[in-house]
Formats: sequence, C-alpha cells, structure tokens
Amino acid sequence: MLGRLNHIAIAVPDLEKATAIYRDMLGATVSDLQPLPEHGVTVVFVDVGNTKVELLEPLGDSSPIATFLEKNPAGGMHHVCHEVDDIVSARDRLRAAGARVLGDGEPRIGAHGKPVLFLHPKDFCGTLLELEQA
Amino acid sequence: MLGRLNHIAIAVPDLEKATAIYRDMLGATVSDLQPLPEHGVTVVFVDVGNTKVELLEPLGDSSPIATFLEKNPAGGMHHVCHEVDDIVSARDRLRAAGARVLGDGEPRIGAHGKPVLFLHPKDFCGTLLELEQA
Repeated sequence: MLGRLNHIAIAVPDLEKATAIYRDMLGATVSDLQPLPEHGVTVVFVDVGNTKVELLEPLGDSSPIATFLEKNPAGGMHHVCHEVDDIVSARDRLRAAGARVLGDGEPRIGAHGKPVLFLHPKDFCGTLLELEQA
Repeated sequence: MLGRLNHIAIAVPDLEKATAIYRDMLGATVSDLQPLPEHGVTVVFVDVGNTKVELLEPLGDSSPIATFLEKNPAGGMHHVCHEVDDIVSARDRLRAAGARVLGDGEPRIGAHGKPVLFLHPKDFCGTLLELEQA
C-alpha cells in the first residue's frame, strides 16, 4: 500500500533564507516561490533527483504550520508524504486497523492538485504522515 | 552538490511495534532487525521504492538517539540523509559558507558502510542533515 516517498516537508520561518541555504550552500536546484493561499503556505520545491524536499513558510493568518513554528522557531521536519494508488481504500484499511485520520477523513485536494489525507502522528511513530493519491 | 535522498530516519521507542505499523498497517516491505552496536542503534529499513525510511531504536547505554527520544517519547523524524559525490569537498564547501559540521568534521563510516557527516540543525532550517558519500 505505502508507495514512493513523494516529498518530505520542512517548515521554515523565512523561505528566502531557506532557499538560499538549499540553493547556495547545498548547491541544490530550488524552484521559484509558490504562494498557495488555499493551503496557508508559500512553498519551494527542492529537486533532489529521486524525490523532493518542500520548504514551507506560513501564509495568512491561519496557516496549518503556524503552531509548529511557534514550537520550533528555527523550523524543522514537519511531515512525510507517501504516494498510494487508491486513497479511499488506504484510508479504510488504516481506519479498520485502528489508525486515526485527521480532519473529517475525506480526502482533500492537496498542494499538487491530487487527493491527500493526513494521519495522526500518535499512531505513526510520532511522525505526521501525508498520503497522496498518485 | 546535494544528491538524492538516501533515507529519512525516524527514531522510535519500540522497533517491533514500529515495524508492525509500517508492515501491517501501512503494507510496506520492512527488513529484518539489524543491530548496529557500533552506531548505538538497531535499525529496520522500509523500502518505499524510490528511497528508504529507516526506523531506529536505541541500542546500548550511549545511543545517539537517546536524548531525542527523551524529548520525543513517541518517536519522531530524526534526520534526513542526502547523497553527495565527494564528502570531503562537500564539507569544505559548507564550512567555507559558514556551516557547522558536527563532531570533529572527519567523515566516519556510517550504517551503510560509507563515509558520512552530520550538519548542525541550526544552520539547516532546524533539520539534522546527514551527508553520505554515494
């Protein structure tokens, strides 16, 4: 069920500075800034060949990463996104096994235009997992 | 310079339980447990196709992940490992740019038998980065 690692997401307080770290210090290819107001973040994508690192900065007053950055003001690893073939069957299988799906459990359209769900970190080794239908 | 994502590492308090989560709930392929006493961890590798998720449990009295688990008793994302072609030139470039390399700065042989270095999280968006010579 658990498919390829689509991206890891790192929340940062300053996306320009984070972009400079990945582009200039680490020599990686970093996309332009993409504001995603419907998701409450501005994002850049770091292309590392086999997957992506996404750097997220809060956008707007109710960003989903605002609380995380209050607790981790320097930034930090926020979530890991894996691809699945069928997100509804993945959700049903996980729920049947006792796992908690965040929100109302209905897939939403994520930052890549595909259906996504988030799983409760307490059920997954303290790690916020995103599932994205490939 | 920054190459493919070799693995993400998740520290866990109970590797048998974490294995069951990834294998049975998430339907992933998980390796057998591998004790690595020289690294102070027992590890399993979760094959997700394009990269690996490594689940780490402390082994011995001075495990490098013991303090992290005291702060995060349920576990959590511990570090991200990227491949580089030449670890010494990567280190020298990063130091010249003002980044801190952990320890004495000399590459050590990591869990995969290849030279590795760790970079200071405060210089990299709150994220512990490992570099591994591919």
